[in-house]
Amino acid sequence: MVQPSGNIYIVIAPSGAGKTTLVSALLAVDPAVQLSVSYTTRAPREGEVEGTHYHFVGREQFLAMIEAGDFLEYAEVYGNYYGTSAAWLREKLAEGRDILLEIDWQGAEQVRRLFDGVITIFIAPPSINELERRLRGRATDSEEVIQRRLAEARSEVDRAALYDYIVVNDDIERAKQDLISIIRAERLHGTKQMLRYRDALSRMGSQG
Amino acid sequence: MVQPSGNIYIVIAPSGAGKTTLVSALLAVDPAVQLSVSYTTRAPREGEVEGTHYHFVGREQFLAMIEAGDFLEYAEVYGNYYGTSAAWLREKLAEGRDILLEIDWQGAEQVRRLFDGVITIFIAPPSINELERRLRGRATDSEEVIQRRLAEARSEVDRAALYDYIVVNDDIERAKQDLISIIRAERLHGTKQMLRYRDALSRMGSQG
Repeated sequence: MVQPSGNIYIVIAPSGAGKTTLVSALLAVDPAVQLSVSYTTRAPREGEVEGTHYHFVGREQFLAMIEAGDFLEYAEVYGNYYGTSAAWLREKLAEGRDILLEIDWQGAEQVRRLFDGVITIFIAPPSINELERRLRGRATDSEEVIQRRLAEARSEVDRAALYDYIVVNDDIERAKQDLISIIRAERLHGTKQMLRYRDALSRMGSQG
Repeated sequence: MVQPSGNIYIVIAPSGAGKTTLVSALLAVDPAVQLSVSYTTRAPREGEVEGTHYHFVGREQFLAMIEAGDFLEYAEVYGNYYGTSAAWLREKLAEGRDILLEIDWQGAEQVRRLFDGVITIFIAPPSINELERRLRGRATDSEEVIQRRLAEARSEVDRAALYDYIVVNDDIERAKQDLISIIRAERLHGTKQMLRYRDALSRMGSQG
């Protein structure tokens, strides 16, 4: 059995759409998917663990990494930097691992320019009202931040048609199964499977 | 919510690859998929029910239906005719139903010429030895038929790379989940979802 190169999945969602819950559910049932751990200059939130949720670095170190070409993509969001290590990603893909990136649309565009066959998945909230309710429910953000996130969510929904898949998170259990199915089905494409089962299929064919 | 047109899924497999078991498992969990019921001139096998497994018709009636242009596709296999009613399929798709066709590669080519976005899924047995074991296990076919099916299976495997997805049936539970995931994921493509959630997404966008 030959291991084809892994897939890159990018999950994009407005803040509050439920991305973290859905991705956690996916990772719990699909050990072949590995989450990319981003570098960031923002302060850790309560419960966030260095190396698991992010690599937390200072602004100076981040800028030095940009200089050194360490990032596959990086973006500044609300005054903080976020970036994905290029070397790590290429290494994992070569091992046949599937990598899931939780990045924004700007980062997605950068990754798409560098890799073929990137699979983009947009998570949509059921409605703006519901999104607002969820953002207020978190009670961690100021009114200004909430209004900015709602405006940003509207622009992100405007771009929904650009993505390969759309999961509407109006039913969390259905949305979980949707995401799990997308990841699974993408591995079963003919081209991937022809590589994975090359020997078995050629032995079965008329020349075998 | 606007209902987009349904998908056409074609499942292709060598005889003995386990197609019937996999498709039954899919239909049991996914009520949105409807199996196309073919017309055939072959005699019913034990347990086969008219209208559920096939519409059993005489050769003369089948030839008259060909004349009348009733068939979307038809093929002669081992001396018997099999065909799919065009009118029925178009009606179901317009209702937003997903239709699954169990036809051979010749039929698949015909359907692909007539419809856009047809999704083809090849079910491969784990090996020719295992396929032979399964065919002999059925004990319904003569040695000549078994040999013909094995030769035909080899040619079908030669064509595997032409299909959108390949499911290798070396573990029945995994293969079932694979098939279920493919059907589910195909509905979540951006273009389909943009239609299905058109109103909700446009209300959420920056013009909403």
